[in-house]
Amino acid sequence: MSAYDDLMAFQRQTEALAQVAGRLGWDQETVMPEGAAGQRAEEIGALEAVLHARRTDPRIAGWLAEAVAPDAVGAAQLRQIRRSYDRTMKVPARLAEEIARVTSLAQGIWAECRGREDVAGFLPTLRKVVELKREEGGALAAGGDPYDALVDDYEPGMTGTAIAAMFDAMRPRLVALREKILGAEAPHGVVGRFGQEDQLALSRELATAFGYDWSRGRVDLAVHPFSSGSGHDVRITTRVSETDPFNCFYSTIHEVGHAAYEQGIDPAFALTPIGQGVSMGVHESQSRSYENQLGRSRAFTGWLYGRMREVFGEFGIGDAEGFYRAVNRVHPGYIRTEADEVHYNLHVMMRFDLERALIRGELDVADLEAAWNERFRADFGVAVDRPSNGMLQDVHWSCGLFGYFPTYSLGNVYAGCLVKALRAEVPGLDGMMAAGDVSAATGWLRERLQRHGGLYEPRDVVRRACGFEPDEGPLLDYLEAKFGEIYGL
Amino acid sequence: MSAYDDLMAFQRQTEALAQVAGRLGWDQETVMPEGAAGQRAEEIGALEAVLHARRTDPRIAGWLAEAVAPDAVGAAQLRQIRRSYDRTMKVPARLAEEIARVTSLAQGIWAECRGREDVAGFLPTLRKVVELKREEGGALAAGGDPYDALVDDYEPGMTGTAIAAMFDAMRPRLVALREKILGAEAPHGVVGRFGQEDQLALSRELATAFGYDWSRGRVDLAVHPFSSGSGHDVRITTRVSETDPFNCFYSTIHEVGHAAYEQGIDPAFALTPIGQGVSMGVHESQSRSYENQLGRSRAFTGWLYGRMREVFGEFGIGDAEGFYRAVNRVHPGYIRTEADEVHYNLHVMMRFDLERALIRGELDVADLEAAWNERFRADFGVAVDRPSNGMLQDVHWSCGLFGYFPTYSLGNVYAGCLVKALRAEVPGLDGMMAAGDVSAATGWLRERLQRHGGLYEPRDVVRRACGFEPDEGPLLDYLEAKFGEIYGL
Repeated sequence: MSAYDDLMAFQRQTEALAQVAGRLGWDQETVMPEGAAGQRAEEIGALEAVLHARRTDPRIAGWLAEAVAPDAVGAAQLRQIRRSYDRTMKVPARLAEEIARVTSLAQGIWAECRGREDVAGFLPTLRKVVELKREEGGALAAGGDPYDALVDDYEPGMTGTAIAAMFDAMRPRLVALREKILGAEAPHGVVGRFGQEDQLALSRELATAFGYDWSRGRVDLAVHPFSSGSGHDVRITTRVSETDPFNCFYSTIHEVGHAAYEQGIDPAFALTPIGQGVSMGVHESQSRSYENQLGRSRAFTGWLYGRMREVFGEFGIGDAEGFYRAVNRVHPGYIRTEADEVHYNLHVMMRFDLERALIRGELDVADLEAAWNERFRADFGVAVDRPSNGMLQDVHWSCGLFGYFPTYSLGNVYAGCLVKALRAEVPGLDGMMAAGDVSAATGWLRERLQRHGGLYEPRDVVRRACGFEPDEGPLLDYLEAKFGEIYGL
Repeated sequence: MSAYDDLMAFQRQTEALAQVAGRLGWDQETVMPEGAAGQRAEEIGALEAVLHARRTDPRIAGWLAEAVAPDAVGAAQLRQIRRSYDRTMKVPARLAEEIARVTSLAQGIWAECRGREDVAGFLPTLRKVVELKREEGGALAAGGDPYDALVDDYEPGMTGTAIAAMFDAMRPRLVALREKILGAEAPHGVVGRFGQEDQLALSRELATAFGYDWSRGRVDLAVHPFSSGSGHDVRITTRVSETDPFNCFYSTIHEVGHAAYEQGIDPAFALTPIGQGVSMGVHESQSRSYENQLGRSRAFTGWLYGRMREVFGEFGIGDAEGFYRAVNRVHPGYIRTEADEVHYNLHVMMRFDLERALIRGELDVADLEAAWNERFRADFGVAVDRPSNGMLQDVHWSCGLFGYFPTYSLGNVYAGCLVKALRAEVPGLDGMMAAGDVSAATGWLRERLQRHGGLYEPRDVVRRACGFEPDEGPLLDYLEAKFGEIYGL
C-alpha cells in the first residue's frame, strides 16, 4: 500500500462515518421520538468526537507529505484532504470545543428569545458566538481578514472583498427593480384549501420530473425542508401549508436541486473527499436553478398550472398566464426564507454587510438591531415591526454560521450564469418544459457540473460549465427581463 | 478522575456509538432506499470498526485493574465491562474478522438457497460458519465445551448441559400435550379481510395498553418485526396480513414486551453497560409474557374481541369464548415463527439439539438435513415437505447465531415463572385485563424485573422477581391447564 492508498482508505472510513452522522441528523428532523432528544445529543456527540479524532489524526500529515496522486482525480482528492486537514489543525482544540458547546446552547437560547421577542436576552449569547468565531477566523486567516477565512469554509477561494464588489454591483439594480415593480399592479394569488395528500402526491410528481432518483432517496415531512446525504442515500424533506401549495411545491423542487447534485456526482467518487457538492454556493446554484430559473419559468408553470387544475379544480386563477404571475408575485416581506426572487438577494446582502462588520469588529453586537432596522427600511421601504421579523428571524448566527449567508446569493449568481449557458445550448428547452419535461435541463446540469463533485474548485466548475467567467450580469439581466415583462415595466 | 470514572466515561461513548449502530439497523429495515444498500454496508462497517477498536482498547485492561466500584451498581458495571472485554480479547482479531466477513456473505447465500430449495448449495457455507463458530467457541471456552461458551454470549451463566436437562424434562410433556390436543376438535379461525389502516390503528391501541411509551419510541412496518434501541429511543416494527390480523396484533404485543423492558430500565443506567436487557432469555421472557401469558389470556382476549368487533364487524366468530379458542388454536406447522405456544418449544428444542451437536462435532453438516427431518417427524408427526419448511427456514445459523435458539424457550420458561408469581401477587388481574387494562401486570414486571437492566445476572433477576428458583414447571403447568381446558382434555 502506498501512502496515497493508505490515506484514501482512511478517508473513506471517515466519509462513511460522516454519512452516518448525516443520517442521524435526518432521523432527528423527521422520525425521532421527541423524548429521545437528550440521548441523541450524546449519540451525536460521541460520533462527532470520533470524527474529530480522525480529522486531526497525526498520520494524515505523514501521508500527505508522502502521497503521490496517481492522476488528476487523485490530485483533487489530495487537495481536498490537505485543505480540510490544514483548516482543522489551525483551530486549537480548545476553541473548536468551545464553539461546539456555545453554539449548541445558543440555538436553544435564540429560539426562546425569538419566541418572546427578546433581543436583549439574546445579545450576551450572540456576543460570545461572535467573539469565538472572530477568534476562529483569526486563527484560520493567520494575519489576514478573519471574515474571509470564515467565508472560505463554505466557499473555498471566495473572499469578503470579492463578494462585496459583486453585491455592490447588484444592489442598486435590485433596489431599482423592486421599486418599479411595487409601483405596478400586483398579481392575484391562489385561493382555497389544498389538501395535504394531494400536495404531497403532486410534489412527488415534481421530484420525478426534476430527475430525483427515488431508488437512492426518499421524501418526508419536516419543519424546515432540507436535503441530506451523499452518493446512494440522498433524502429530502418538504412541508405543507394548506393555503399555500407553492410552499410545498417549490420547497420540493429546491431540495431536489440539492439532492440531484449529490445524486449526480460520478459514482466513482462516492465516499471520497470529492464525492460531494464542492461548495455551498455551487450547491445553491443547483437548487435555485431548479426552483426559480426552471421551476418558475413561464414554460414550466404552464404545465404545472394544468396539473394543479386537474388535481385541485378551481383555485381563483383563470389561465396559465395568471398562474405564472402568481407564482412570481413580488411582495416586500420581513422574512428571507419567504422572499421572492427580487427581494431574496436584498435580504442576503444586508446580512452579509452586518455579519462582516460584526466579525471585523466594525459593528458592536449592541448596535446590531439598530443597524438591521435602518438597513431594512432603506432597502425594503418599511420598518421592522418586531425582532422575530428582524434580526432574530434566522438561526444562522446562533449556530456560528458566519460567512454562510453570502453563498445563497452567490448561488443565485451562478444559477444565472448556468441557465444562460444552458438556454444557449438547448434551444428547444421551453417547449419541453411546457410539456413537463425538464430532463434536457437537468441532464445538461448533471453532465456539465454535477457529476464533477469536488473535482474542480467552485468558481472553476461553474466557469467550465458555462464557458465564460461567472458574474452577476446574467442573474440581473434575467431578473430585469422576467419581472419587467410580468409587471409591464 | 479515578480509573472507574475514566472507564465509565469511555464506556458511555461506546454505548452511545452502539446505539447509533442500532439506529442504522432500524433505518435499513424500515426507511432506507433500496439503492443505498451497498453504501450502507460500508457505513456500518466503518462504525463497527470504530466499535471494535474501542472494545479492544488496551486502556480498558488498565482501568479494570485499577477501578474500584463506588457501590453495588458500580460493581455490576465493572462485571459487565470485564465480561465483555474478556470475551472480546479471547477471540483473535483474525477470527473475529473472518466470522464477520463469512456470516455477512452467508446470509445472502442462505436467502438465495432457501429461495430455490437448495440445501446442497448452502452446505459449504454452513460448514464454514460452523467451523468458525466452533473455533470461536473453543477460544472462548479455553478447554471447556465450545457450545457452552457460545450460549454464554446470549445467556450469561447458562450452559448447554443445564439447557439440555431442562429441555429433556419439557419435551415428553409437550409431545404428550400436543398429541392429546390434535386428537380433539380444532377451533375455528377468523374469516374475512382486515384492512391495513384499521389493523395498525388497533395495534397502536394495543401498544398503548401494554405500556409502550410513545414519547420514546415509534412503530413502523417491516418485513420481520423487531425492537431496536435502548433508553430513550426504543422503536418497534410490526407487519400486516390482510387475512390474519393476529399476526399484526401479537407481533406488536411481542415487540412491545421487548421495548417495554428497554424503556423500563432505570433511566440512571441509560448509555451504561447495565442499561439494557441483561440477556436474550430474560428479554424473551418479557415479550412472551406480554404476547402469550397476558395477551392470549381469556381475560385480555375478551376485551380484544370486543374491540375487534367494533372495528371490523363480523369475522366469523360469534362470541368471546370462540375468539379465545381461535387466538390459541394449536396446529402443527413447519415454521417456528408461526408456531403456537405448544409447538413453539418443540421447534426450539430440535434446533438446540442439532446445533449443539454441530458445534461439538457430533453431527456433520452433511447429515444435518436428514437429522432435522427425522426429528421433525418424531416430534411433529409429519414429514418436512421442502427445505424452506425445514432446515433452511431460519436465518440464524447463516448469521453465526449458534447458542441463540435455546434462549427463546428459556424465555418461555422464565415467563411461566414470572406470570405465576405475578398472578399470585395481583389477584384481581383478570378482572382488569378483561377491561383492557394490563397496567397492573406491566407495572409489576417493570418494578420487579425490567428496571434492573443488567444489575443482576439473568437467572438471578428472574429469581428475585419471582421469589423462587425458576424452572420449567410453571410453564408446563400453565400450558397443560390452559390447553387442557380449551380442548376439553
